[in-house]
This record gives sequence, C-alpha cells and structure tokens, in this order.
Amino acid sequence: MQGTRDYNPKQMAIREKVFNIITRCFKRHGAETIDTPVFELKETLTGKYGEDSKLIYDLKDQGGELLSLRYDLTVPFARYLAMNKITNIKRYHIAKVYRRDNPAMTRGRYREFYQCDFDIAGQYDAMIPDAECLKIVHEILSELELGDFHIKVNDRRILDGMFAVCGVPDDKFRTICSTVDKLDKMPWEDVKKEMVNEKGLSEEAADQIGEYVSLQGGMDLAERLLLDPRMSQSKQACAGLSDIKLLFSYMQLFQVTDRVVFDLSLARGLDYYTGVIYEAVLTQAGVAPASSDAQNGTEESVSVGSVAGGGRYDGLVGMFDPKGRKVPCVGVSIGIERIFSIMEQKAEASAEKVRTTEVQVLVASAQKNLLEERLRLVTELWNAGIKAEVMYKKNPKLLSQLQLCEEKGIPLVAILGEQELKDAVVKLRVVATREEVDISRSDLIGEIKRRTSEA
Amino acid sequence: MQGTRDYNPKQMAIREKVFNIITRCFKRHGAETIDTPVFELKETLTGKYGEDSKLIYDLKDQGGELLSLRYDLTVPFARYLAMNKITNIKRYHIAKVYRRDNPAMTRGRYREFYQCDFDIAGQYDAMIPDAECLKIVHEILSELELGDFHIKVNDRRILDGMFAVCGVPDDKFRTICSTVDKLDKMPWEDVKKEMVNEKGLSEEAADQIGEYVSLQGGMDLAERLLLDPRMSQSKQACAGLSDIKLLFSYMQLFQVTDRVVFDLSLARGLDYYTGVIYEAVLTQAGVAPASSDAQNGTEESVSVGSVAGGGRYDGLVGMFDPKGRKVPCVGVSIGIERIFSIMEQKAEASAEKVRTTEVQVLVASAQKNLLEERLRLVTELWNAGIKAEVMYKKNPKLLSQLQLCEEKGIPLVAILGEQELKDAVVKLRVVATREEVDISRSDLIGEIKRRTSEA
Repeated sequence: MQGTRDYNPKQMAIREKVFNIITRCFKRHGAETIDTPVFELKETLTGKYGEDSKLIYDLKDQGGELLSLRYDLTVPFARYLAMNKITNIKRYHIAKVYRRDNPAMTRGRYREFYQCDFDIAGQYDAMIPDAECLKIVHEILSELELGDFHIKVNDRRILDGMFAVCGVPDDKFRTICSTVDKLDKMPWEDVKKEMVNEKGLSEEAADQIGEYVSLQGGMDLAERLLLDPRMSQSKQACAGLSDIKLLFSYMQLFQVTDRVVFDLSLARGLDYYTGVIYEAVLTQAGVAPASSDAQNGTEESVSVGSVAGGGRYDGLVGMFDPKGRKVPCVGVSIGIERIFSIMEQKAEASAEKVRTTEVQVLVASAQKNLLEERLRLVTELWNAGIKAEVMYKKNPKLLSQLQLCEEKGIPLVAILGEQELKDAVVKLRVVATREEVDISRSDLIGEIKRRTSEA
Repeated sequence: MQGTRDYNPKQMAIREKVFNIITRCFKRHGAETIDTPVFELKETLTGKYGEDSKLIYDLKDQGGELLSLRYDLTVPFARYLAMNKITNIKRYHIAKVYRRDNPAMTRGRYREFYQCDFDIAGQYDAMIPDAECLKIVHEILSELELGDFHIKVNDRRILDGMFAVCGVPDDKFRTICSTVDKLDKMPWEDVKKEMVNEKGLSEEAADQIGEYVSLQGGMDLAERLLLDPRMSQSKQACAGLSDIKLLFSYMQLFQVTDRVVFDLSLARGLDYYTGVIYEAVLTQAGVAPASSDAQNGTEESVSVGSVAGGGRYDGLVGMFDPKGRKVPCVGVSIGIERIFSIMEQKAEASAEKVRTTEVQVLVASAQKNLLEERLRLVTELWNAGIKAEVMYKKNPKLLSQLQLCEEKGIPLVAILGEQELKDAVVKLRVVATREEVDISRSDLIGEIKRRTSEA
C-alpha cells in the first residue's frame, strides 16, 4: 500500500530501543500514559487542522457513526480531557496517526506513522511546565545520540505582536504567519515576495518583519526586544517576551540552554498554539535532509532535519467542553519515524549485527534420538525463566544447530549426548570462542544466567 | 463512539503489566516481532473470513487504493510472509484489530481490541511447534494468575473424518462443523435439532456425531479412537489421531498435560485451519461469563470464559503467493481484552492502590522562594536517572506537596529549606512512615536508589 510499510524484526528491534529511551524519559518525569481509539468521530477532528483537514482519512459510511482515523494525538488528548473533566494530568501517548499525504517515502514520510507525545495539562505557574518539555526534548535527543541538534523557541504572542506593530492587518496574521514559517526552506527574498505579491502586504510592513525574523539569540535578545521602541508598544509581544525570559531562566536551571535558540522566524503550522512554540532540528552533517512527522507540523512547514516540536495550546480543550471551560496545556511530540530512519542507517553502516531475539541458549544434541531429552531440558530452562530454543527437528545435525546460533547470535549452546546424559552433565559451548565445558545439570541454570547476564 | 474505549492511566498500568508478562513469554521462546499497517488492501482480506467478512471496516474511497482495517493479525502475517518470501520465522505481534460487531460492552467486547499473536511458520517435524504453542498458553495463563483453566485440543482432520464416517455429505462439512462449534453454549438436543431441521442432516448421522462429540480425554482417547471400527476407516481421522498422540507425548515433556483435554466437540470458527486446533477456557467460579476476542473465533462460537485460541493453518500463506507456494503455520492468539477486564476487576476488588507512575521522589520545599533550588535539585536527580517530580508552583505549601505524594503513591520526599541549603543536606522523608533523615547532597542519589530499589 502506498505510504505504509511493514516493520521487519530488525526494524522492530531498533524501534523498541528508541521507544525504550523515550518511554524511560517520559516516566522519569512522572508521566502517566493513556490510550485512545485509532478512530474518532469525524466531527471531533473537524475544524482543528485548518487546510490540512483534507488529509484526514474517513471510514466508509457502513451505517452508524461517521468516523475518521486520528490525525494526531493532541486533538484526541484534548477530547479525552474534556470528556472526563480532567483538569490536570501529565501524560504520554505513543501511537500511530494517519494522514492522506502524498508520500515521498524516500524522504522518510508515511501515511501511517508513530507520534510520541508528552503533554502537561493544568493551571500552573508560568513557564515551569513549558521548560520541562524542553528539558525532555534535550534529554531524549542527547540519549539517542543523533548528533548535534538545536532547539528553536518562539512565542505566538511575540509573532502576533510583531505583526501588529509592523502594520499587518489583523485578518492577515495567520496567513502571514504561515509565510514566515517557510523561512527555513526559502530565502527571505522569496518569503517577502509571497507576502507582498500573493498576500497583499505592503512592502514597508514586509521589510519591518524581515528585520525581526532575522534575529536569533538567548535571554539577552528577549531583554533587548522588550526595550525595542516598536515591539514594546505591543502588550502581547511584551507578555511573550517576558515569558521567554522566564523560560530561559528555568532552562538554565535545567541545564539545557546550550542547545536552545530564541528564533523569531519560528512560526509552526497549526492554528491552536497560543504561547510558547518550539522545534528541535538536527544540525549534524551527514544527516540526509527529510521532512519530519513532528507533532502538529504542516508537513510542508517543518524544517529540514526537524525531529521534535510542540508548544502551548490553552484553548483546545475548551473547544470540546460544553461550557467552554479551558484547560491550559503544553506539550511536545517526538518525530519518531525520522529518528527510526537515522538509527536504521546507522545500524546498516555499523559492523555490529542487530539481534532480533534475546535467546540465551540453544538446546542441541550431538547424536540421534535425543529429541525427548532436548525437550525435557528446554522445558527446565523455560520454567526457570531462561530464554531458550530447540530446533523443531527429530534429528538435527550438530553442525546445523551450531550454524543456527551463528545466524541468530545465540551466545551459548547446551549440548546433550549419550555420555553427557550418563554423567548428568551438559556440554556448554560458547559460540564466539568455541570453548566447551561440562556443567552438571544442577548448575546449568546458574551458569547460563551468569554467562549471559550482560546480554 | 460505540464499541470503543479510552484507556485511562490506571487501565494502562494494568495493560502494561499484562503485556509485559506476555511479551516476556514470547521472547523466552525466541520469538521476533513484526508490525504491519493498521489497514490492508481490501482485496487482501476478501474471502478469508467467510460470513464474518461483513464485519470488516472499510475506509472511504477518497481516491487511491481501496483499504480496510485489519480484522485479525493472522491474515496480515500470511500476506507479509508471502510478500517477503519468508519460509520460516517465529514471530509475535501485539496490535489492535477491528470488527464492526454489534458490541455488548458489558460483556467485554469491543469493535477495537488488542490481539497478542504468536506464530511459528516453517516446514518442521510434526507437532513440535504445535506443542510449543500450547506450552506458551500454559505459561501465560499460569503467570497471569487468572485462576483455573483448561485447554481443549482437537484436529480439523478428526472432525472431517468423523463427519465422513458418520455419513455427512462432503458439501455439508463446514456448516455442520459450525453447528458443532455451538456445543459450548447449547445443549446437545438443540445442536442436533439445528443439524436435522435447519441443515437437513439425517437423524442417524446426527446421533452418530452426538456420540463422538461427547468424548473427552487424553492420549488414551486418541488411542481408543484409532481402534474404533468406524473412525479408523477414515485416513484423515487416523492422521489427526496419530498427531494428537504425538502432540500429547510432547506436551508431557513440556509439563502441560495437567491442563489439556482432547475434546471432540471443539470445532472453532474460521475456515483456514487445517490441523490441530485449541482453545483455552477459564473454569474458575467468579469469572463473569463473557465472549472473548480470541483469535479467529467467530465471536458467537467462542465459549464462555475463552481466553486464548489458535491452531494450524497450512494453506493461508499460499493464498497470497503468486505461485501458491505453501508455508505451514501454527499459532495462538491471547484474548487480551477479556484478561484486562478480569485484571481490572481484581484491581478494583483489592485494597492495593494501582500506581500509574513510577516516581521515586518529589522534590519539595519547606519555605518560600526556593523554586530555583528545587529545579536545580530535580535536574540533578533526572540527570542521574532518578524518576522525580516537582510541583509546578513558585511557592507550594509543604502540606500540599506531601498530599501530592500520598495521592500518587510517591514513596520519598526530598525537602529543601534554608537550613538544609546552608548545611548542604536534604531532608529525606519516607511518606509511609513519616521518618525523616538528613542526607548530605553528595549521598542523596545513592540513598534514593537504595530506598526505592524494590519499587
């Protein structure tokens, strides 16, 4: 099928490793997990994704409710909070989402792909949860060893304030915002052309925007802009800038500022962000350029090498509450398919073989007619919690049993023969070194555990 | 949405525990894992599920390929093997499947539900992989502590041979088979009526079937039936009976015969079985009757309390191979939703609180203006791999911080105050006992690890 893929055992082994690192981080930060159905009522998704709504997969009307496959995990999360009247929770959710996008599979994009989302919902003191989300991105990308990265941050209120003071008419904020979002793929000259020629902005306004969106820095930049004669006229921009300052002070305590850049050109795709927004980008050479499946990103708007993104969305839960009660939320999504691709490339390039099972020992026989003895022994091992296999043959050759171990990376072979049975021992062979030792049956389990404890 | 549910954090904690037990067992037996997309080409599913095909969810035709949500994991597995020309693999797959069934949710049935499948594909010596599947069911049900259970086994060839020698016309085999399948829900008299009145079988033939399907036993029963004057006339039945004998001999070595019954009334729903079939049933009183979502079962045909099922299907992979090359397969599916329900009931009934996070310590403060110090300390703990939280407030009260620990079951609180900061210590409080000790900052991480190592 177009835009989908099976995962083979090798890919699954890599996927599991990545998920383990991510899940461990989410748990380290005290997150619970929830799950929601793969489809939602069509009306739940309607009006949440702007232009991208055309990418939603609908189920056929076979009688009953009209259903659609989920497009992201954020909208189902907001629906879940409103439906269950939950006003604070820290949760993660790792699951597949679906987009009828024109897939460019070589670039690591799929119609079915995983998202790994972490969100903090609740009314808390400003910027503490927001800073923790950035800490999490920092921890995960560091632990995955994907090479250098940086995290851009900005705030929707700064963008809106900037548009206002630069003379963008109110009704053009969103469309100018999505043009700004193209700055990571297009030079400023082209972005300006789009603003002026396509979106009808005055050249002056565009030039003023151009000055601001070229700015990058840290807390100092936020301080400077708070004193900027134009910018400081916008209450909204000032609120955003003060929060960026606060965010940086918390990020310093969290020891993540080495990777974070306050970047006024960061806009991000989706409409529902209301405050801080961020995006993590891999910067190391050698990483093939690719679009990402990072949360909430209009695919087209996500920069080359982007592997995580998110922000604050304080209005979304209220859209699902009959009384419009708001629950402030901030979250981040790890663009995992992109990370899988990189890890797969690394695995291909490395000499090390990826093991797809964790089998510790193969129970083998050196002579014929020992199937019963092999089954008896493997049962003993399974019952003791040892990961073990036997060949499903009555009389396999010893050589083919040893070859199986080589193929599968099984480190030990427990070999039975007439003599061993008589002596109540097992010949334990270390596949890598071909070393063989006789171990008494009663010591076997302990010996296998000891020899495979690092594995 | 009808027939679906969200999983809240408590349910997820239980689900994770169950998945861990099952995954560990599959891995102990050396299985790799694969994943396939949630939808398949509609044509892949067509003609595989007989009457149940009406329960398949189709995606809306929005241009492009015609797609359906997967109905089980067995057909995608067979498609995967044929597509990748894989002739032997031992794999597990844990994923959701979809059925447009009329849901009776109180009975634990859903339109979206998990299946946990383990299958062995490959040309091997008879009954060794089949016996391992039963060993796996035995291990999983024992470890889940769901109470007493037994596993019924039979063989499609014995059923077909029995039908033949009892005078059932060839073209009525499948329909009579599905009537036999109702014996776990209906008394023999009603089953017989259906055979005679609805399916047009002769009364004599029905009575002969009635004698056989009342038989239950072990290896001895297979031996007796091999000598049965009628049954022994069927070559097919004899092949099945010999294999049941062999299966029992291997099961003895695997130490699982205590739970296994050779039961001639076991028929199972789906068409694609070609040999051994089996089904595990919970027998303990107190288990609420419910239909299961066990693999391949026509929902209606699965017996009360059934939690696992499977069998041998040697023809399915060949249906997807352009040259019809066959790959013999045998597998089992754990009916996990049913098991979740039981575990949830048990958790409700028990006094013990289900923890939904694994947080080891809350970083708290006893006085005001210590947010920075708390963030600094929690960063230290996160960086050392400790699962830790802080309250997202500038100046939380100590009492509310302690209450949070009670609510969430966090075992330790690391309390900072002016004095502690001066002395370079942290007051470590054990929530359960209210014991408090001053620990030097340099010993804190070790002390937290030591005190929460059992958790």
